Amino acid sequence: MAISKQSVYEPLTENGAISLTVRLGLFPEGAPLTCREIGDGNLNLVFHVVDQQTGKGVIIKQALPYAKVVGESWPLTLKRAVIESNALRTFASYVPEYVPNVYYSDESLAITVMEDLSHLQIARKGLIEGKTYPLLSKHIGEFIAKTLFYTSDFGMNQQQKKQLSQQFVNPELCKITEDLVFTDPFFDYETNNFEQELRNDVEALWNDDTLHLEVAKLKRKFLTEGDALIHGDLHTGSIFASDTETKVIDPEFAFYGPFGFDIGQFFANLLLNALSRPEPQQEPLLAHVEQTWGVFTNVFSDLWDRHNVEPYAKTPGLLQDVLRQTFVDAIGFAGCEVIRRTIGLAHVADLDGIEDKNKRIYAKRRALHLGKNLILQRRVLNDVQEIRALFLQTFTTIH
Amino acid sequence: MAISKQSVYEPLTENGAISLTVRLGLFPEGAPLTCREIGDGNLNLVFHVVDQQTGKGVIIKQALPYAKVVGESWPLTLKRAVIESNALRTFASYVPEYVPNVYYSDESLAITVMEDLSHLQIARKGLIEGKTYPLLSKHIGEFIAKTLFYTSDFGMNQQQKKQLSQQFVNPELCKITEDLVFTDPFFDYETNNFEQELRNDVEALWNDDTLHLEVAKLKRKFLTEGDALIHGDLHTGSIFASDTETKVIDPEFAFYGPFGFDIGQFFANLLLNALSRPEPQQEPLLAHVEQTWGVFTNVFSDLWDRHNVEPYAKTPGLLQDVLRQTFVDAIGFAGCEVIRRTIGLAHVADLDGIEDKNKRIYAKRRALHLGKNLILQRRVLNDVQEIRALFLQTFTTIH
Repeated sequence: MAISKQSVYEPLTENGAISLTVRLGLFPEGAPLTCREIGDGNLNLVFHVVDQQTGKGVIIKQALPYAKVVGESWPLTLKRAVIESNALRTFASYVPEYVPNVYYSDESLAITVMEDLSHLQIARKGLIEGKTYPLLSKHIGEFIAKTLFYTSDFGMNQQQKKQLSQQFVNPELCKITEDLVFTDPFFDYETNNFEQELRNDVEALWNDDTLHLEVAKLKRKFLTEGDALIHGDLHTGSIFASDTETKVIDPEFAFYGPFGFDIGQFFANLLLNALSRPEPQQEPLLAHVEQTWGVFTNVFSDLWDRHNVEPYAKTPGLLQDVLRQTFVDAIGFAGCEVIRRTIGLAHVADLDGIEDKNKRIYAKRRALHLGKNLILQRRVLNDVQEIRALFLQTFTTIH
Repeated sequence: MAISKQSVYEPLTENGAISLTVRLGLFPEGAPLTCREIGDGNLNLVFHVVDQQTGKGVIIKQALPYAKVVGESWPLTLKRAVIESNALRTFASYVPEYVPNVYYSDESLAITVMEDLSHLQIARKGLIEGKTYPLLSKHIGEFIAKTLFYTSDFGMNQQQKKQLSQQFVNPELCKITEDLVFTDPFFDYETNNFEQELRNDVEALWNDDTLHLEVAKLKRKFLTEGDALIHGDLHTGSIFASDTETKVIDPEFAFYGPFGFDIGQFFANLLLNALSRPEPQQEPLLAHVEQTWGVFTNVFSDLWDRHNVEPYAKTPGLLQDVLRQTFVDAIGFAGCEVIRRTIGLAHVADLDGIEDKNKRIYAKRRALHLGKNLILQRRVLNDVQEIRALFLQTFTTIH
């Protein structure tokens, strides 16, 4: 009898989560296990199973067959759990130090069992609390450089790369990004969500043909350019961190996309946090942006020199051309992310959490201005330091 | 019992071909059928089954599990037969008038049974005989415009497009193009094949870093940009033609690639034929290049206006940007094709068939010069008429 995958699926309970860890032999026999569901319930269940005797834990993440956003729910493919566990395993083969260890995955239950990272904190949360995570940009720059290089036509057999890209075709999750990052915020669509005080600024974006043209070009890159296996959602909420450790999680949006996308999203979320901070505390974020790019280019260039499989690798100017295009695209993608996190469906707590309304509106107006300038000026920026100038400009332009 | 696909495969005989058409009911019962194998035997068997009473025929094409080139044979995936029949069917849903009708396909036997086009002639052959095929560029311009538009993110639901692209992942056939078009001719590789009289010109290409950089950028586009389902091998040998009809065949190289590739290969093969002709007879070929681009842009723009599914479709400047990038890329791809068809592994009869050795060498030197200029000057060409100028320039530059 054929059983369809859909029919096997059922949401796990806390007891079911414990039973699974026992079946998998992840804890010593008879260990006193407790379990708590700690997900936000929007997209996934997240179970934290802990051995009370040793304090050791594991995480079981289960995709839900729908997404709950602003009260509504829409159906969402369970295949994203397979994408997530496969992406974590692929990343682990290049940067095991920056991703959680995957112990087990089950496609029909949409489950990934993985390393417990509860000794770390979600970077966005820590940054909002004023932490600076001195190694964050070094680690993320290295994570991005290695995952991009080794899964690209420069670091991987070009035939194998095509087969890998086939495994990561991810239409439904890509659509979320295509809509929420690249489209909805730039039109008067229902998904948008912003304070009335921003309406003038928002309408200016909606009516800006020049901006639309540039966003459309960036969207086209996202739709068509398969440079490497990208994380696809690398904001500060997808990163666990401490002062010494960094772990990237939640790659359910992973697919073969453009080199610049992950860098751009990370830049944007650093800048959004900077916008939420008092001026004297912004510096570490701006420095993180610069260091991310610096580390990325160093590591990527080093891998290029030592491990490039492309016969044109040594052609003078090629690496520079790839890095330049990546930089320009990253700035543009960052601009889209800054704007959508300010007026689109999914906001960031960095800005929304500013309690004083005037300050919040001011920060958001600056965000919109910054986002627009990142998009429009990406081709004239010569190096990453100039992002700082664009950031500071928003102080003087927005009143 | 599980039977692997590999074990079912065996090359068809002429009698087997006849039996298959009978089993498929393609001819009336008892029809007097004859069969002849008419392929060149390099990559495929091609059987022509004819009903001697009515004169009607069908074609059965079967992929061989190897390629014979310059005496050697290398293994080659049978999956290309599936790619070919799927591509023909996909194209037929947009431009049935420009592809043979597919009656049947069998994945395990690597067989496609299709419309007999023997009332037409392979365009390359006719062009070499001096024919001009007045409608060739109108038809091919329309074929390219419609197949590209409707399989791209502008003409097709963007999620469906991703699923379609997944079906056409085609690593082995792409590798042939990556090697033979974009790589080998530009390095001192064994696959190259040219007269000693060309050695100086060829070595100049091998040592030209500027050219290498531009070819590397074009190769990267071929490796990473998935704009639309392209034919992937659209030279004049993949086209059947008469004065009134045009049919595109052999899309076994089909995959999701850049918009400009098919146009570029078609341009190149028109130009190669022009190079082989006495000066007064070159005009129809140059006119074909111009008309191909003219028809392509008209049809594509019209579809864009009427059937675009992308929310940014009406953004001023977007269509122009897409067309401009397509044009620049097409010119560059054309340059690579002109060069590889002159000194690479797979030549064209247009040039190799020039009997007078001095004339042949002269035409080939002009081809190399033209190819290089197409690549290096693609970004400064403003419109398609300027290709003619580059073509004519080779008369005065090469002596």
